[in-house]
Amino acid sequence: MAYKTLEWKNNTLVLIDQRVLPFQIQTITCSDPLEVAEAIRNMTVRGAPAIGAAAAYGLALAATRSRAATPVKMLAAIRNAGEALKAARPTAVNLAWAVDRVIATLETREFASIIQVREAALAEADTIAAEDVRVNKQIGLNALPLLPDDVTFLHHCNTGALATVDYGTALGVIRTAHEHGKKVFVYVDETRPRLQGARLTSWELQQLGIPHKVIVDGASGTVMKNQGVNAVTVGCDRVAANGDTANKIGTYNLAIVARAHGVPFYVVGPTSTIDLDTPSGDKITIEERDSSEISLVGAERVTPVGAQVFNPAFDVTPAEYITAIITEAGVCYPPYTETLRTAVERARQK
Amino acid sequence: MAYKTLEWKNNTLVLIDQRVLPFQIQTITCSDPLEVAEAIRNMTVRGAPAIGAAAAYGLALAATRSRAATPVKMLAAIRNAGEALKAARPTAVNLAWAVDRVIATLETREFASIIQVREAALAEADTIAAEDVRVNKQIGLNALPLLPDDVTFLHHCNTGALATVDYGTALGVIRTAHEHGKKVFVYVDETRPRLQGARLTSWELQQLGIPHKVIVDGASGTVMKNQGVNAVTVGCDRVAANGDTANKIGTYNLAIVARAHGVPFYVVGPTSTIDLDTPSGDKITIEERDSSEISLVGAERVTPVGAQVFNPAFDVTPAEYITAIITEAGVCYPPYTETLRTAVERARQK
Repeated sequence: MAYKTLEWKNNTLVLIDQRVLPFQIQTITCSDPLEVAEAIRNMTVRGAPAIGAAAAYGLALAATRSRAATPVKMLAAIRNAGEALKAARPTAVNLAWAVDRVIATLETREFASIIQVREAALAEADTIAAEDVRVNKQIGLNALPLLPDDVTFLHHCNTGALATVDYGTALGVIRTAHEHGKKVFVYVDETRPRLQGARLTSWELQQLGIPHKVIVDGASGTVMKNQGVNAVTVGCDRVAANGDTANKIGTYNLAIVARAHGVPFYVVGPTSTIDLDTPSGDKITIEERDSSEISLVGAERVTPVGAQVFNPAFDVTPAEYITAIITEAGVCYPPYTETLRTAVERARQK
Repeated sequence: MAYKTLEWKNNTLVLIDQRVLPFQIQTITCSDPLEVAEAIRNMTVRGAPAIGAAAAYGLALAATRSRAATPVKMLAAIRNAGEALKAARPTAVNLAWAVDRVIATLETREFASIIQVREAALAEADTIAAEDVRVNKQIGLNALPLLPDDVTFLHHCNTGALATVDYGTALGVIRTAHEHGKKVFVYVDETRPRLQGARLTSWELQQLGIPHKVIVDGASGTVMKNQGVNAVTVGCDRVAANGDTANKIGTYNLAIVARAHGVPFYVVGPTSTIDLDTPSGDKITIEERDSSEISLVGAERVTPVGAQVFNPAFDVTPAEYITAIITEAGVCYPPYTETLRTAVERARQK
C-alpha cells in the first residue's frame, strides 16, 4: 500500500489519520503514550491488530520520553503508560495483549541501563509489528482452500491494511484469493455508524484493483439471496474461549442472515485476538461510544436535536453462527473450546 | 401533527418536503401532475400510502389544469397523467392503486361538463385521503390486543404521519399503544441509506412524546438480544397474495433477526397495499435508486470517488418470516393466501 497505518519515525509514532480517509491523507504524530492512547480512543488508529501494535509503540514512547534514572523506575513508568493505553478502548483484546507482551518481555530481562530498556521496548514493538504482517499473510494462505475459484465475498467493516500493520485479516483473505488468481468480487457493508466499509475498505479494494460494490448494512440479506454470495468474512476484536466473537456492530446480524442463506460465515484474525481467559461472549465488555457517531455524519446532522441514541460499538456473535475461525495457526472448527486452545498453543510454540 | 404531509390548497397540492426534514420545515407546491410525479420520484413525498394519496391529487391537478373541451378528452388527459404518475416509482402498489381507483370512479360516471369531471376527480382524491387516516386509526386499534402493556418496539424506516396522509401505519400502531396508556419504548432503526428512521420517525416520536432511541440498522440483533424487544413493526410497499412483502431495504434482515430471537414480526399496512394480482414476492419489481443515496449523506461524501454502489431501495421478506399482517380489515395470520384475500374483500364491502 502507498500508505502506512503506523510507522516509528524519529522517536515518534506516526499514524495515518483514519478519521478523514479516504478524502484527506494526513498523519498524526504521537510523541508520548498518552497521545497514542487518545489516538486509539478517538479512532485515528483503529482495527484490533493495529491498535495492538500502536499500543506497543506507545510503550516504546513511554520509555523514550521517560526521565527515569534507573531501569526499575523506567519500567514503572512503562507499566503506568500501559494502564493508560489499555483503558483507551475496552473491547479489542489485542490492545491489552500487546501491552502485556511488551511488559512481560521487559520483566524477564535484567537491564544495565535505561538505554537498554528503551531499546528492548522498541525492539519488542517492532517484533509485534513485523509479526502482524507475517501472520496476516499466513492467515490468507490458510483460508485459500476454503474458497471457490470464482468467489463473491460479503465483508463487514474494515479489516485491511489499515486495520493492521499491513495486509489485513479478513480483507487479507480476500486479497490473497485475488493474488492467487481467483476471480473475486466483494460486496462491502458500509458499516454504520463510522462507515469503515464505505470509506476504508472500498478505498483499499480500489487500490488493490479488486472489483466491489458498497451496500448499506441492511442490504446483506437481499444480496445473499439474489447475488450469489459464497462467503462472509469478518474480523474480530475478541474471540472468547468458546468461540463467541466480539466484532464491529452489525456482525451479529450478518451472521444470523448468513446462516439463514446457508452462506459460510468466517471470522478471521490472529491468535492474539483469541482470549482464552474469557470463557464466553457474555463476559466481554462492549464499548458504548458517543451518540454523535450516529447523529452526525461528518458535519451533516441526521437525527433531530435532542434525539436519544444507543451506540454500542460492538456486538457478540455466538459461536454457533460461526462456520470457522481462520488464524495463522490454522483453521479452527467447532468445538472451538478445543480448537482455539490448540491454535493458541501452536502459535506460541513458533 | 403540526405539519401536513400533503394538502390541497388553492387548486394546488402542497407537500411538506421530506428530504430536508426535520432540519428545515418547507413545502413544495405542485401545480400539475408531472410536478407531483417528480416529487414522488425524488422523494419529496414518500411512504406507500402518502404517495398513493399524492398521486390521486395529481389526477385532480390533471383535471384542474386540462384545457380539454369535453369530459371524454379530459378523461384521456387524466389517464395520461395517471401513466406518468404510476411510472414515478415502481415498487409501492398504493401508487397504482390510487391512480386506478380515481380513473375507475370517473369511468363509471356520465359527465355533463368538464367542471363535473374536475369535481369528481378531486372528490375521489379527498375520499382516498380521508379514508387513509380512518384506516390507519383502525389498524392501530386492531393491533392493540397483540401488545403487552409494557411494550418495547423495534421499528424500521418511517411509517408515521409523514408516510401517510396522517397518523401512520406501523408507527400508528405504536402511537395507538401509547395513546391507550401502554408503556411504550421504541428502538428506531436509522434506516440507511435515506435515514428515514433517524430523521423522520425520531422527529415524529419526539412530537408525540414517545420515548425512543435511534440505533444503526446493524444493531437490531444485539438490541433484541439484550434490551427486551417485544415486537418489530414495519410498513409495507407491496404485499403479494401469498404474504411476501416488499418494504424498505433492511426489512428482510430485520425479519430474519427477529425470527432468530423469537420476536414477533408484524407487517402493518392498509389493504390497499395488498396486491392480489402479484402471486409472490419474486414477481415484485424492486426499484434500484441512484448511487448517490449511499455515497453522499447530505453534502458529506462517504465512499471514495469512483466507488461502485449497489442500491436496491426495497427488499422482499418471505411470508414465512411474518408473524401477522395487520390491516384495517383485521389481523391476517398464515395461511396468508386465504386471510389476505378475505381482508381485501371485507375492506371492499365497507
